[in-house]
Amino acid sequence: MSFNYLSNEKLNIARDTYISKLIENGFKAKTEIVKVSESCGRISAKAIYAKINAPHYPASAMDGIAIKASDSFGATETTPVILRKDQFIVVDTGDPVPESCDAVVMIEDVIYQEDGSAKLFQPAAPWQHIRQIGEDICANEMILASNMKITPAAIGSMLAGGVLEAEVIKNPVIGLIPSGDEIVLPTGNPKPGDIIEFNSSIFSSMLGEIGAKCIVYPIVKDKFDLIKEAIGLALSECDIVILNAGSSAGRDDYSCDAIASFGEVLYHGIAIKPGKPAILACQNEKPILGVPGYPVSGIIVINEILGPIIDLWYSKKAKKETAKATLSKAVVSGLKYEEFVRVRLGYVNDKLIASPLNRGAGVVSSFMKADGIMRVAQNLEGIDAGDSVDVELLKPLNDLKNTIVAIGSHDPLLDELCDMLHLRYPNLYMSSSHVGSMGGIMAVKRGENHIAGIHLLDESDGKYNESYLKKYFPRGGVKLVECVGRTQGIMVAKGNTLGISSIKDLAKDGVRYVNRQKGSGTRILIDYLLKKEGIPCSDIYGYDREEFTHSSVATQIAAGSGDAGMGIYSAANIYGLDFIPICTEQYDLLIPDYAWDSQPVQKLIEILKSDEFKERLERLGGYTLGHPGEIREY
Amino acid sequence: MSFNYLSNEKLNIARDTYISKLIENGFKAKTEIVKVSESCGRISAKAIYAKINAPHYPASAMDGIAIKASDSFGATETTPVILRKDQFIVVDTGDPVPESCDAVVMIEDVIYQEDGSAKLFQPAAPWQHIRQIGEDICANEMILASNMKITPAAIGSMLAGGVLEAEVIKNPVIGLIPSGDEIVLPTGNPKPGDIIEFNSSIFSSMLGEIGAKCIVYPIVKDKFDLIKEAIGLALSECDIVILNAGSSAGRDDYSCDAIASFGEVLYHGIAIKPGKPAILACQNEKPILGVPGYPVSGIIVINEILGPIIDLWYSKKAKKETAKATLSKAVVSGLKYEEFVRVRLGYVNDKLIASPLNRGAGVVSSFMKADGIMRVAQNLEGIDAGDSVDVELLKPLNDLKNTIVAIGSHDPLLDELCDMLHLRYPNLYMSSSHVGSMGGIMAVKRGENHIAGIHLLDESDGKYNESYLKKYFPRGGVKLVECVGRTQGIMVAKGNTLGISSIKDLAKDGVRYVNRQKGSGTRILIDYLLKKEGIPCSDIYGYDREEFTHSSVATQIAAGSGDAGMGIYSAANIYGLDFIPICTEQYDLLIPDYAWDSQPVQKLIEILKSDEFKERLERLGGYTLGHPGEIREY
Repeated sequence: MSFNYLSNEKLNIARDTYISKLIENGFKAKTEIVKVSESCGRISAKAIYAKINAPHYPASAMDGIAIKASDSFGATETTPVILRKDQFIVVDTGDPVPESCDAVVMIEDVIYQEDGSAKLFQPAAPWQHIRQIGEDICANEMILASNMKITPAAIGSMLAGGVLEAEVIKNPVIGLIPSGDEIVLPTGNPKPGDIIEFNSSIFSSMLGEIGAKCIVYPIVKDKFDLIKEAIGLALSECDIVILNAGSSAGRDDYSCDAIASFGEVLYHGIAIKPGKPAILACQNEKPILGVPGYPVSGIIVINEILGPIIDLWYSKKAKKETAKATLSKAVVSGLKYEEFVRVRLGYVNDKLIASPLNRGAGVVSSFMKADGIMRVAQNLEGIDAGDSVDVELLKPLNDLKNTIVAIGSHDPLLDELCDMLHLRYPNLYMSSSHVGSMGGIMAVKRGENHIAGIHLLDESDGKYNESYLKKYFPRGGVKLVECVGRTQGIMVAKGNTLGISSIKDLAKDGVRYVNRQKGSGTRILIDYLLKKEGIPCSDIYGYDREEFTHSSVATQIAAGSGDAGMGIYSAANIYGLDFIPICTEQYDLLIPDYAWDSQPVQKLIEILKSDEFKERLERLGGYTLGHPGEIREY
Repeated sequence: MSFNYLSNEKLNIARDTYISKLIENGFKAKTEIVKVSESCGRISAKAIYAKINAPHYPASAMDGIAIKASDSFGATETTPVILRKDQFIVVDTGDPVPESCDAVVMIEDVIYQEDGSAKLFQPAAPWQHIRQIGEDICANEMILASNMKITPAAIGSMLAGGVLEAEVIKNPVIGLIPSGDEIVLPTGNPKPGDIIEFNSSIFSSMLGEIGAKCIVYPIVKDKFDLIKEAIGLALSECDIVILNAGSSAGRDDYSCDAIASFGEVLYHGIAIKPGKPAILACQNEKPILGVPGYPVSGIIVINEILGPIIDLWYSKKAKKETAKATLSKAVVSGLKYEEFVRVRLGYVNDKLIASPLNRGAGVVSSFMKADGIMRVAQNLEGIDAGDSVDVELLKPLNDLKNTIVAIGSHDPLLDELCDMLHLRYPNLYMSSSHVGSMGGIMAVKRGENHIAGIHLLDESDGKYNESYLKKYFPRGGVKLVECVGRTQGIMVAKGNTLGISSIKDLAKDGVRYVNRQKGSGTRILIDYLLKKEGIPCSDIYGYDREEFTHSSVATQIAAGSGDAGMGIYSAANIYGLDFIPICTEQYDLLIPDYAWDSQPVQKLIEILKSDEFKERLERLGGYTLGHPGEIREY
């Protein structure tokens, strides 16, 4: 093998070494000639000089008559000058001014006589209302320097200056090779074990956004010869080649060997998480990257390694916008790797709050939900809640300022609220994190959210929410906004083949229960119900298997990986499950006073009160509506 | 005629009325179904729900073995558990976990025995290292709300959720009809009177940037029937139709009548300058705009009227970034119209300075140079120098912070410096305004520029620049940086048919002189030379005809619209003129102390000292170089 196996190198060191190597090998942008009219957004490869003057003839700047200025000298209100028909020429704006003339008089200032002569009541200054040759652009003048982005106005200037073609930086062509035996093209009906190949679509969209043109090659099976052949083809057609998947230490990993047969492998494995086993290699000046199959890992490698390479191609300095944020939840990290943690961001109480998202490398949805990325340095054990952190922004700060941060209990109605809010008010957004009712209350206490969905049963009086607020907010500072009544019950597979009809049945042999996480209202409910029935938790198989939303509990049951779980009717309905109703509970919104007066929250209240909200909930099913949006006394 | 002729209405009122009318008539976005893999950057027309779970089977999150967790209970370092070959299954990351198993043990924690059994030294927790069904995305979950921009990660989420197609907002199709008898397609060789049709390229680039798809129709002659036919065709194919040119009050203006024959004309003429005679009309819900032929007018109308219509189509709120700036030069305005003044912006001394650019409606290059737009309200006579103004930004503030603001005397070498600076340091820019040497000195005194090119002759000692600095900066605060010696002389047409050989000859009959503006070093020089020869200015035809750069004087002579002008050798050389050398002058850079230490200025000094600068000047010709970049004592 011809390559160094340098695992565990720090990302920035690996990247810088890699890029230095590429430059040393002669990596630089190619250029191409394009039509100026189609060059918008491209980067000039050379300084562009005008070929002709604009205007290219002395042009009238007004509708009027062209004259010799000296013919009009002496004209006043009382002693007008009369010009014979052969002393002037009628011109419109843009018309050429004849060489014999050196001034234009506006039509408003001309009185035509019956014999066709023109009367002027004031003298014309020489060169007045004439656009001189080259007034706009002089031939040979530099219109655009090298390396400049071509704007619409620059296109106009070039065409006005007679420049019809321009040499611009060619968009780099990047070949993406998806590989792996289990990989299949996107489908709505995958078989177990099939891994849907969506990485190429993500990567080519990302790369398209930063100016690259992607060729996605057919999926290659995990065979050395086939991979080698695919890389060879891509190298012959592209400026940069990315081999996706196969770069972890799995059974069938030929990536590194195949890449090494074409060039030099500088790194195999970098100390970042997620994204560890990337391969950085090159065939002379041509970068070849092996990118791990997990989408989040791949995205990190594209962002952190390939982004700077494309920037280098375009001679740009990467400009990553960052902001200081307060971390809402402690992040524990391994010491071994630099970790990239996706975070949700929200402005609450004028403070930017960062909430860490699911950190799995395969969880592509976490990237969609992410508003920013926080780095946890190598050799750092983690970061505490409340710490100030630097976050790289993935969304404009302004959008974040218009985003309602919902942290609390989950209900599908939150998605509907989010949709209605953004439909009615396109500049308002809502982002939801599901941490359960108690999590929502704690977030309000820490000042980290605008609303929290809560449904907390007080065992002593069977009422919902009120006693909790008295306990956690003894001095007020929050409003309880009525939302909905909803039916809680046991969700079981269609047909209920295990014959589950009560809480007791959950302890039956062969029943795989799927639980909700501690602190969620639904967990508090099942704990209470079991206590009432005198059933110990340990009697229930799967009681430790925790999911974070009604939907994910329902999903396990629908998919057959669990048999029963507590949840609300609408979730059972959506997933086509049978449902054994147990009780009706009150699901309300807790809104702190600091958020109450904000425009987004007030718009949300307005939507809660709307007929459309009622209609949408009827379609979901299992809800009873009193007066959603009203403030409830407690 | 069926339309109201409402001239002189304020822009924002006309626009709001027009948009209300369009909404009333049912204007709204069309939608279309696209492949998710090709949907990056599009806007979701409806909420998008997952069709399948991701993962759609319980998947191993590690390379290792899948086991039943309970089989491993009790394992410790001292009492390992041994699993028979039928008690585990080897899995790679992403492999399905069989239904009989509920945990995965990482390969690192497994010791294989010789008989194929596996030894574990610690128990596995149920569900460890298993990605549960739907961990990433649950079927039926809302992936994206309505009206949201589709990001690369959203594409990944949709494909992972089995969604292969999405309903998105269709890009509006805009038909552009260029019209006018003098209009010709872009050419490097236009005839006098030809007007090059570059507006469609500017407009379609601008509209493309905000998400529209443009169809540019062939140029239509100014005939009522032809224009009507073209509009009819465009209306049948497009969502919005723009008729360009012909909307001013010229001889052959059929635009308004032609448009009126298809729909309702709401406005013809709006009180903005430049951009006055726009036509706002509609055929039911379909907007038809008549846009004036002058490019700057057209750009304003596209920005101010069509921009908000496209935003409405996409349900976006227009977000125009603005900043407070200090006006460097008074702007006088008419009372009749709201005026849009293009400005150059620069950060000098931590203050954002706005310098007004050429205000002609035809000067497309001014839009290219513009960094922002300042509005002068109707009924306001103007704004004073030093006033604080609101400026709408056309460039990111960050780029402006890295821009050297050069205000002073013109020399083509400034363009070369600008090119070299941006080539070497892609994040650094230089913007030049040509106001003459005295203008440059005054700008430094007001703290508005970083450098000023100056070449000011002291008549008393024949020296350059030094005495001026002693006079204008008696307490210092500026550095004089040596730049070049350059040859000044008389530029005349190739062949010098008028036989001009000295300053005296400029007063000869039939010689049309082209002058430079007052305050420029070249003007001070010619004033001095004439005084020395005892020739009164009034003896020279064209002495009042002022141009602002060497290039534009040379251009007039090269184009035959003038016969002689003072200028530098390099300008004569670029334009192929004959040149009668008169003297050598010192052209230096004045750099105030407040700008001296900045990185861009220091990089510029570095470039002045470079060999490449010398080589470029040799190519231009007429320069003598001593030690460019050195500080000159004075």
